[in-house]
Amino acid sequence: MFKSLLENVKLNPPLVHNITNYVTVNDCANIVLASGGAPLMADDINEVEDIVSISNALNINIGTLNKRTVESMVKAGKKANELGIPVILDPVGVGASKLRNEAINILIDEIDFSVIKGNMSEIKALYTKTKNTGGVDVQEEDVIDNQNIEEAIEFVKKVAKRFSCVIAVTGAIDIVTDGEKVRLIRNGHEMMSRITGTGCMTGSVIATYCGSNKNDVLSATVMAITVMGLAGEKAYEKTVAKGEGTGSFRTYLMDSVSLMDYETLKEGAKVEIR
Amino acid sequence: MFKSLLENVKLNPPLVHNITNYVTVNDCANIVLASGGAPLMADDINEVEDIVSISNALNINIGTLNKRTVESMVKAGKKANELGIPVILDPVGVGASKLRNEAINILIDEIDFSVIKGNMSEIKALYTKTKNTGGVDVQEEDVIDNQNIEEAIEFVKKVAKRFSCVIAVTGAIDIVTDGEKVRLIRNGHEMMSRITGTGCMTGSVIATYCGSNKNDVLSATVMAITVMGLAGEKAYEKTVAKGEGTGSFRTYLMDSVSLMDYETLKEGAKVEIR
Amino acid sequence: MFKSLLENVKLNPPLVHNITNYVTVNDCANIVLASGGAPLMADDINEVEDIVSISNALNINIGTLNKRTVESMVKAGKKANELGIPVILDPVGVGASKLRNEAINILIDEIDFSVIKGNMSEIKALYTKTKNTGGVDVQEEDVIDNQNIEEAIEFVKKVAKRFSCVIAVTGAIDIVTDGEKVRLIRNGHEMMSRITGTGCMTGSVIATYCGSNKNDVLSATVMAITVMGLAGEKAYEKTVAKGEGTGSFRTYLMDSVSLMDYETLKEGAKVEIR
Repeated sequence: MFKSLLENVKLNPPLVHNITNYVTVNDCANIVLASGGAPLMADDINEVEDIVSISNALNINIGTLNKRTVESMVKAGKKANELGIPVILDPVGVGASKLRNEAINILIDEIDFSVIKGNMSEIKALYTKTKNTGGVDVQEEDVIDNQNIEEAIEFVKKVAKRFSCVIAVTGAIDIVTDGEKVRLIRNGHEMMSRITGTGCMTGSVIATYCGSNKNDVLSATVMAITVMGLAGEKAYEKTVAKGEGTGSFRTYLMDSVSLMDYETLKEGAKVEIR
Repeated sequence: MFKSLLENVKLNPPLVHNITNYVTVNDCANIVLASGGAPLMADDINEVEDIVSISNALNINIGTLNKRTVESMVKAGKKANELGIPVILDPVGVGASKLRNEAINILIDEIDFSVIKGNMSEIKALYTKTKNTGGVDVQEEDVIDNQNIEEAIEFVKKVAKRFSCVIAVTGAIDIVTDGEKVRLIRNGHEMMSRITGTGCMTGSVIATYCGSNKNDVLSATVMAITVMGLAGEKAYEKTVAKGEGTGSFRTYLMDSVSLMDYETLKEGAKVEIR
Repeated sequence: MFKSLLENVKLNPPLVHNITNYVTVNDCANIVLASGGAPLMADDINEVEDIVSISNALNINIGTLNKRTVESMVKAGKKANELGIPVILDPVGVGASKLRNEAINILIDEIDFSVIKGNMSEIKALYTKTKNTGGVDVQEEDVIDNQNIEEAIEFVKKVAKRFSCVIAVTGAIDIVTDGEKVRLIRNGHEMMSRITGTGCMTGSVIATYCGSNKNDVLSATVMAITVMGLAGEKAYEKTVAKGEGTGSFRTYLMDSVSLMDYETLKEGAKVEIR
């Protein structure tokens, strides 16, 4: 599966339009490049349609939301739907404020998303609109492990059916489903949560791979999460071997994504097809 | 002192709400994580109260000021005061423009700060409202050294009394005082001024430590400045040993903060209690 | 030539005011520092005149354009012209949207630029206002090589004459001209296009060197592009030698700029004077 997906990225490097937050925007641009695409980061309402029109995927991330950018997101998303290019949503911190909940309701109503990616707390908030009170990280009761995995899968399938798109829940075990097919990914390392932006970067890699593989966004999403997880493992090994900390880990994570190839991926991927 | 302060961070990792500039915001988020907290970076006026309500500290930095964010800062600061969580101010570049001077006057009037941190030029501008004409770096006549330290201490004590909060003046010798107690810190390395964001990051670390130690913000501030200074020394040593430059220094600074523990801190801290 | 230019930077380190995009703003601030200046990043319309007034150069970059910042750019640019300090323009992605084209027309009409720097697609769009449909990277038909270099030089000279300023076209071979004198630079490495921000950083280094060398902005621009290219070569060598990827390359690029000295520059520069 991964072989042809990766070849498509190489043969048709996608232009990836990101409307994202100002905290991790540089990481997102660099990870698009590292994974084989070219980033475009425009967010002004007067140019998002022009920029979407030359892009192969649109990535919407609500990390540092404001009124101005929500309007741009809607306009860009509608144009992307019209043009048939994949739209990815990262509902960062939904549940943490009324503004975020309202914004997500607008985005969900107005745009048809190809993939929605979040941690379990975000996906639950998205589904139930219940209040998430712990900020942008996953809540303890929402951690996915071998104990609660079956229950979690059923829930995520339900969410995917409701929103008619691929749902990717990231965590110690990642769950990706379109409501029918289910993929579990067991790559990654907990050090990834000790730097900012790994979640946002994962969204950008999903958008990159979907941009060149729009006929199989489920597999493209699985590959993106696997690549990020595997890169995290390699970055962790190198960081520990050299006695370094989170600054070096961040650099090595980018290195590992930029050096990723089919052989590495094939050997390291821990994907379970259900 | 440091032992229990550090343990409090570990036992109760703080959520730290930063309303800051878009230049160093990624560094600030990463340093909060490196020092044991979790960052929240929201700045829209419609959600800052919700975000403050789930936070343990609020860090306000006026690096890239605009009208929109000043209003958010005031709203967030008032809410934080109401909830009794520590509020930290970094008056970046105050004195360099009328906008900054006016904004600082509004912030000082409306919010009770726990800690205000700046270089001597900024703290002087804050106090005297005289015009600072050299941008965001300390002016030459304001450098603190062994010659003028006694005079500087008296001045900073006066500022602390005026604003009824802890004042931290960073420089070759750092001065931290609540108007009565005085602490001098002689850690740090001048290479820290050759990368952007070390000042902003120090503010974020102060907020992180204060978030878990709100009953002793003086000591938490001293620890934050000591940790940053000591990390700067270690980063410098490694950079020079490897013949590297400011890019690597920046990475190693983050590494050193993320690897900091009580033993390293105890051994390397150069804190003088007056 | 380079010797005195570098000495001027050391003797009179410039304050460089950047009104730039939020994607690469941190890289821009750090590269100003690495190349010997001090960055100021204010963009609010109510303070840009104050900030320009204490600066030695103004760098305008339209990477993430919006209505608010265009107005600030115009105000800052006019003030800089009034004060006689060099103004640099990086017309990122011009041609990719109507908003960018309109903004560039306003900027060109209202401000006298000292240097305009872009890739060939941007400079062509600037000149012809024809539509560029490939985002922020150079289009394939616009790549400069030994085949089309003579034709390219004639075109760039024409652009320089039209706008009465230095035009710098970056690519495999860089062309810098004021309409009469022509300099070709053959430094650089293609890995520089695999990270975001090398173009923006080049603009910031041009502004830094022009800030201390305002009587010879042509030479200052040539030096900036040579330094960046040479730093790219050195960063590439180190990255490959260590088997690392784009994350490390980015760090080493900054290292190399911060470690650049006259001897390294003299030995490595590949500048052709026409």
